Amino acid sequence: MIEVGVNGYGTIGKRVADAVAAQPDMELAGVAKTRPNYEAETAVRKGYPLYAAVPDRADRFHEAGIDLAGEAEDMVMKSDVVVDTTPSGIGEQNRELYERYDTPATFQGGEDADVGDTSFVARANYDAAAAEDVDYVRVVSCNTTGLSRLLAPLREAYGVEKARVTLVRRGGDPGQTSRGPINDILPDPVSVPSHHGPDVNTIFPDVDIDTLGVKVPATLMHLHSVNVTLEAEPSAADVRDLLSDESRLFLVPEEAGIDGTGKLKEFAQDTGRPRGDLWENCVWEESVSTEGSDLYLFQSIHQESDVIPENIDAIRALLDREDKQTSMATTDETLGVGLESLFRGARRRVVPREADD
Amino acid sequence: MIEVGVNGYGTIGKRVADAVAAQPDMELAGVAKTRPNYEAETAVRKGYPLYAAVPDRADRFHEAGIDLAGEAEDMVMKSDVVVDTTPSGIGEQNRELYERYDTPATFQGGEDADVGDTSFVARANYDAAAAEDVDYVRVVSCNTTGLSRLLAPLREAYGVEKARVTLVRRGGDPGQTSRGPINDILPDPVSVPSHHGPDVNTIFPDVDIDTLGVKVPATLMHLHSVNVTLEAEPSAADVRDLLSDESRLFLVPEEAGIDGTGKLKEFAQDTGRPRGDLWENCVWEESVSTEGSDLYLFQSIHQESDVIPENIDAIRALLDREDKQTSMATTDETLGVGLESLFRGARRRVVPREADD
Repeated sequence: MIEVGVNGYGTIGKRVADAVAAQPDMELAGVAKTRPNYEAETAVRKGYPLYAAVPDRADRFHEAGIDLAGEAEDMVMKSDVVVDTTPSGIGEQNRELYERYDTPATFQGGEDADVGDTSFVARANYDAAAAEDVDYVRVVSCNTTGLSRLLAPLREAYGVEKARVTLVRRGGDPGQTSRGPINDILPDPVSVPSHHGPDVNTIFPDVDIDTLGVKVPATLMHLHSVNVTLEAEPSAADVRDLLSDESRLFLVPEEAGIDGTGKLKEFAQDTGRPRGDLWENCVWEESVSTEGSDLYLFQSIHQESDVIPENIDAIRALLDREDKQTSMATTDETLGVGLESLFRGARRRVVPREADD
Repeated sequence: MIEVGVNGYGTIGKRVADAVAAQPDMELAGVAKTRPNYEAETAVRKGYPLYAAVPDRADRFHEAGIDLAGEAEDMVMKSDVVVDTTPSGIGEQNRELYERYDTPATFQGGEDADVGDTSFVARANYDAAAAEDVDYVRVVSCNTTGLSRLLAPLREAYGVEKARVTLVRRGGDPGQTSRGPINDILPDPVSVPSHHGPDVNTIFPDVDIDTLGVKVPATLMHLHSVNVTLEAEPSAADVRDLLSDESRLFLVPEEAGIDGTGKLKEFAQDTGRPRGDLWENCVWEESVSTEGSDLYLFQSIHQESDVIPENIDAIRALLDREDKQTSMATTDETLGVGLESLFRGARRRVVPREADD
C-alpha cells in the first residue's frame, strides 16, 4: 500500500484525501491543516489522522476540541508520497521538507512550473512523471488540465496547427465570499496572451496556442471557447466520436436538457457524486463544429475537482507503480469518472446537423 | 429641417429622440409609445410630442394624465423619416404603414435582415443607404455594429483573412429585471456559429468570420474576445495607431485605471454623458496584440447606445442629405462622440510592451 500524506486540506486537499481513501493501492497517512475550521472537523469525523500544518499551532486545535496526530513533519516522515495542496507559493517553500525525508511529492498548478521536475496531466504525459530522476511533479491548474486533455487526442488524430482559446473564468469558488466581480465582465488579464497558453506548453512544448482570459460573476465552473486549427479536415461527427472515446471528456448530449454550468452541477449532484464534483471536461456536444480545418467547441471545467484524478495518477507515476492505462482506469473506476455512459444510448442517436442560426 | 418621428420609446427610442433633438438639421416630429409608464412621463417633460403607438390606447394615457398629440399614424404622416425602435418583429409589421405614406424608415437589428433594403453601419457602408432605390435600412445590432466598426479599418489597412470572435454577452440590460442568468456561464447559442457572424456578412458579405456566443450574469456591456488573422503582419503599435484614428473606437488607455465595464460606465457618467452612454467601441488598448498575422484584442460594447449615432447617420444617408464624412462628423460633434481625446496626451506615452505573464 502506498502511504499518502496530504499537506493542505482546503478545496483540493479534502478532495484528494477522499480520492486516496478510495484507492485499492493507497492508504491515507493523514492530512495537515493550518486552522481548526469546519473542514478540520470533517476530517476528524471521517477518521483521517489530522496534523497541524504549521508548527506551534497545536494549541488552537486543542482549544477547538480537536485531537491532533502530530505536526506536518511527522506526517511527511510516515508517508511514501505527499500531495501538497497548500496555497500558491507555499508548496515551493515546503519542497525542502519533503526533500529532507526523501519523500516524493505532487504540487498544484498555482506553483511556478519549476517547483517540480515536470508538469503533469495523466492523459498527456504520464510517462514524464514515471521517469527515474523525477521525484517532484506539478499537477497543472484546472484550466491547463482541461486544455491538455482536449488537445491530446486532437494532436494524435489530426495534428494541431494552432489553438486559440478564450477562457471565460468564474470569479471565485462558491466558498470564496470576498471574490468578485459582481455584475461585470473583465478582460483578465487585459494583456494577451494569458498565462494559460504558456502553461499548456509545459505539457506540450510544441503546441502553438494563444489564450485570452475573461472574468465574470459566476462561481460554479469555467467556460472555454475553443478554436483549434487542425492539420486535417475531419467532420464534426468524426471529432465527436474521437472525443467520446476519452474517459475524462464528457460530451454533454443535447438530449440531456443541460444548458449551462448550473444544470451540469445539479446533474452531478443528482447522480450522487461527492460535492457534485465534475472530474471530466464537460464538452458541449452540440457546439463541436468544423469549418474546413477549424474546429470550434465549448467546454466547461470544474475548477474544484478536475485535477483530483490527475493527482492520484501522479502518485502512481512518481512511485512507478502502474503504467498509464492501468492507473487511469483504476482512478476512473474507483472515483466513478465517466458520465457519458449514463447517456451513451441517447448520444448515439444524435444526428450531426447544421448549426443553428 | 428633417422631421423625424421615433416609433417606440424604450431603450433605443428614447436615446434616438434625444440625439435627433441635438442635430442642427433635424427636428423631432414626435415619439410614439404603447404604455404611459415612466418613460412616457419623461418624454412629456422634455416637450416631445407624444403619440399612442397602438390605436385605441389613448384612454390609458388620459387616465394617467398624459396628453397625446395623436396616434402613430398621425406622426408618420408629418414625418420625413421614421426611426422604428419597436420590439423585434414589430418593425417588420410597421413597414406597411411607412410605405403607405412614402416615408423612409430605419429599423433595428432585432428585425430580420430583409426588413430593409440594406443593412447599415455608417463607417462600413454609408453609401449603400444613400443609393436611390433604398428607402428602408436596418441598423444592425449593437454587437454587429461593434464588429463592423472594428473590421472596417482592418480590412482597408491590412486585409482580413479570417475573423474568430467569442462574444461574452450581458444577460440583460440593467432594467430587464426578469432576465438571467444568475451565477452561470452559458454557451448561448450552444451551436456554432452564433448569428453574429452571418449578421456581419450583411455588412461585409466577403468577410470570413466565425462567432461563438456566451451569456453571463452581467448587465452593463458585452465583451468581445477578438482574433483576426490579417493578410499582413503589422505590429501591435501599428494597429493601435490605426484604431486610434477612428472616431467611434475608444482605445481605453492603461493609464486610465479602468479594468472593466463597471469603471467604463462610471467614467462615462463622470464625464456627464447622458445616461452614462458609451457610443464608441471600447477597445482595451493593452489587449491589442499581434502574433505573426494574428491580431488579438478585447472590446466592450454598450448594448444600449452604440447604435444611436448609426441611426442618426442612417437618416441623412436615406434622405441623401450629406456625405458620409460630413454626417458622421456632425453626429459625433453634436453627441460628443470621441472619449479618446480626453486621454490623448496620456495615450501617446504608452510604450508597446511585452504581454504580461
